[in-house]
Amino acid sequence: MKYALDITRAQNFPEWYQAVVAQADLAETSPVRGCMIVKPWGWGIWELIQAALDKRIKETGHDNCYFPLFIPMSFIAQEASHVEGFAKEMAVVTHHRLKAVDGKLTVDPESELEEPLVVRPTSETIIGDAFRRWVASYRDLPVLVNQWANVVRWEMRTRMFLRTSEFLWQEGHTAHADEADARAETLKMLEVYRELAEDVLAMPVVVGEKPENERFPGADNTFSIEAMMQDGKALQAGTSHYLGTNFARAQNIRFQSAAGDLDFCHTTSWGVSTRLIGGVIMTHGDDDGLRLPPKIAPKQVIVVPMLREKPEDAEVLAFCQRLKAELDGLQAFGAPLRAHLDKKPVRAANKRWDWVRRGAPLILEVGPRDMANDSVTLIRRDRLREGEKIASVTLTQHELLAQAPALLAEIQAALFAQAKARRDENIRADFSSFEAIADYFGEEAEDGAGAFKGWVRAPWARPTGAELEAVEQRLKACKLTLRNIPLGQGAPSGRCVFTARPAVEEILIARAY
Amino acid sequence: MKYALDITRAQNFPEWYQAVVAQADLAETSPVRGCMIVKPWGWGIWELIQAALDKRIKETGHDNCYFPLFIPMSFIAQEASHVEGFAKEMAVVTHHRLKAVDGKLTVDPESELEEPLVVRPTSETIIGDAFRRWVASYRDLPVLVNQWANVVRWEMRTRMFLRTSEFLWQEGHTAHADEADARAETLKMLEVYRELAEDVLAMPVVVGEKPENERFPGADNTFSIEAMMQDGKALQAGTSHYLGTNFARAQNIRFQSAAGDLDFCHTTSWGVSTRLIGGVIMTHGDDDGLRLPPKIAPKQVIVVPMLREKPEDAEVLAFCQRLKAELDGLQAFGAPLRAHLDKKPVRAANKRWDWVRRGAPLILEVGPRDMANDSVTLIRRDRLREGEKIASVTLTQHELLAQAPALLAEIQAALFAQAKARRDENIRADFSSFEAIADYFGEEAEDGAGAFKGWVRAPWARPTGAELEAVEQRLKACKLTLRNIPLGQGAPSGRCVFTARPAVEEILIARAY
Repeated sequence: MKYALDITRAQNFPEWYQAVVAQADLAETSPVRGCMIVKPWGWGIWELIQAALDKRIKETGHDNCYFPLFIPMSFIAQEASHVEGFAKEMAVVTHHRLKAVDGKLTVDPESELEEPLVVRPTSETIIGDAFRRWVASYRDLPVLVNQWANVVRWEMRTRMFLRTSEFLWQEGHTAHADEADARAETLKMLEVYRELAEDVLAMPVVVGEKPENERFPGADNTFSIEAMMQDGKALQAGTSHYLGTNFARAQNIRFQSAAGDLDFCHTTSWGVSTRLIGGVIMTHGDDDGLRLPPKIAPKQVIVVPMLREKPEDAEVLAFCQRLKAELDGLQAFGAPLRAHLDKKPVRAANKRWDWVRRGAPLILEVGPRDMANDSVTLIRRDRLREGEKIASVTLTQHELLAQAPALLAEIQAALFAQAKARRDENIRADFSSFEAIADYFGEEAEDGAGAFKGWVRAPWARPTGAELEAVEQRLKACKLTLRNIPLGQGAPSGRCVFTARPAVEEILIARAY
Repeated sequence: MKYALDITRAQNFPEWYQAVVAQADLAETSPVRGCMIVKPWGWGIWELIQAALDKRIKETGHDNCYFPLFIPMSFIAQEASHVEGFAKEMAVVTHHRLKAVDGKLTVDPESELEEPLVVRPTSETIIGDAFRRWVASYRDLPVLVNQWANVVRWEMRTRMFLRTSEFLWQEGHTAHADEADARAETLKMLEVYRELAEDVLAMPVVVGEKPENERFPGADNTFSIEAMMQDGKALQAGTSHYLGTNFARAQNIRFQSAAGDLDFCHTTSWGVSTRLIGGVIMTHGDDDGLRLPPKIAPKQVIVVPMLREKPEDAEVLAFCQRLKAELDGLQAFGAPLRAHLDKKPVRAANKRWDWVRRGAPLILEVGPRDMANDSVTLIRRDRLREGEKIASVTLTQHELLAQAPALLAEIQAALFAQAKARRDENIRADFSSFEAIADYFGEEAEDGAGAFKGWVRAPWARPTGAELEAVEQRLKACKLTLRNIPLGQGAPSGRCVFTARPAVEEILIARAY
């Protein structure tokens, strides 16, 4: 069978991913190492994700703010494990002026900064510094803020959306009077992320706590949502951290309690990023390109007029224009439906395939014959093919308008159901030793071919210290990682596959992005 | 008379400005030189400005994208006058790693970049590089993109919102097949800015072309909107540039024309920034703080319950909650009205003054007596005082709900009318020599006291080269600047106040931010 992409998922998953990014017009590499250019279709998806999440962040009582791009180097040094985790690969600003020397531009050595600035890799330290000024009494708590920002972590091996040196995200930061309140906040935002991933991105996730070795530098507890990609690997799609009083102690964020004591705040932070778009691609994409959940499709219904450079073209175009206007007047998911008329001077078949690759949920084709019958030919992107053929149905305009919102809802639900079934079928829980697990996963193929293994859920005794380090080493040798310890587990049973001690819970093991 | 701020505009305008920024909770300085922290109320204003402008940018056919934060140093060097204008004060990233040496964090010398990166001061060069890849044929044109981004220009003297090292803005970048199309785009976006400033920010502006010496580095023509602040100074509030083929030639952005020739694109760029918030403060603020045009007020109607720690408090609160819900159900300016119930455990009088300083358009106070009468006490922020007293009216709840949207529209119009009258009354056009103009402006007082002079509109012969430089020097000595040459002028008359040659047009002269 001939597909719209030159490469299939089965042939080479990583190359297939790059093909979707390029051919769905989502993003491209830039001349700046590790930084991407997000193109209109990709950015449109991000704007919809942002809008959906921003609404939820505000509804849960958070205010948006904006903090500086730069962080003084000394701030990074304040919290010891934070230094360990972040003081490595960062963009460092050391000068503030260029000058022309013999007609060539160079860094002016006289403009060296007294203290280097790092481009924020995350903002706990600079925001904590503000919290210290903002918080005096228990009456000032909780402080609940969020920012939408770009951050930079110098990456050696980058992959668009999944791991880039500069990426876009939101980072929430909160300060609380006590541990219970801060812990409740951490879990509340984790639930917001789960709901966003599942209900908006149609991407099923497992909600759980990261083991100690995978915690955010400076956190007491890190929670994540983990999604299964179509190559069986896990993608950490969002994290929420309970930071205890670690940053508060390091930065002296204190408040006078109702009882008159001077106490340290308990803080949290949580974030999701443009990485979510990578997750959407690898959850829903197929060999014809991207398939977008309608809730995050910049255009949900595409109208493609079949123009033949003939006199009746004008009439077909007028018909399509009216159809688009009618569609725009409908509501889908409680908001105006987003229709688009593709008037580009390109062959209709090319336009169809462009929209197939971009993943538009519904594609309508209208030629003179359709128009004469007051009908349209409808392609559902989530069910593109019927055997070798493209599946399409003919609907009257009236039927289409009556059904379009429900069709979009159906596609949203179908994409989620497909992904969830795949995920649920591919978590094995029948291994009793790590050797068996390692055997099961085997070697990782470079091209991802035939490597689909899914995840393993295994009994876990929560080793720490040197014992945990040994576990990490064994996993690393097999290119495996601990993902998270799913929340809401039943009583544990069996023995830890690493330590053979009685398990206290189960943990997910997988290859991961 | 006692005002809500410690300092009045007449006493010291710059200090008054800082007082408003601080006491309206808009922003604060950060520990990073020249970078500000935008607080929730200030950020809320920016989100509303963004939403209003983003809608207009999309309606005029532009797509949002995102380009890298960093620009290779060599890119800046590509366009000669662009180098001149920008290659000065920029944040330069030279290393990509920190390391701990003897427990102290330092820049790892081994992580030096082969080519330094600058943090974008504006993105013509990096976006032009993408245009070169994106454009092959006339069919690819026009390219119409925009990005919302942070940019950095290292500033020695900063003032919040008006001039900060990091600021937030949108920058539109377009490429066209011919000059006429590019010039039309430049003026179209200038008109979008005018309409945004006047219709949304209630800030009257003069639309005009910058003289040669004030052009954007690399532009053939620069247009601006200029607003008059309450100290009589001008604020450049937005610019739109026709870049000719300058960047296209420097970056080799070419396309095959319909005739088969290989032609250079004509490009444009245009931007407005968080500086607009500074303009709003200095256009509408008074000695009691900020006054916000309702269209950009994060909360348009504030409900302040008068609680006395008595049993009836619960009832008052419930009454206020219902009132807020009713208000939220109304429409103002074609969108849901934004009401807020201030439940903070603070004296009602303090809350009132907080919202006065923050500039909330309507403040409602509700005590037990109001509740018993089913009424509210209404304060209009734009007409706060009647002589020594606070002006308030009592309305039944029914009256309030019936009138609130119209009241907000009235306030929006009143703020614009006030600002426009002040601006129109303070542009003098009766000077026939620069000496008279210099005399009129006199010395600039440090504290701005008694210095209100407004602007002068003077005949102008459009000098260039050395002659223009001499004009600049004379102006500079008086701390004056050329603002713009208003569009849509009638036939010129008189002689240029600088060169005494017959005028070809009139130009605005003012002190400026």
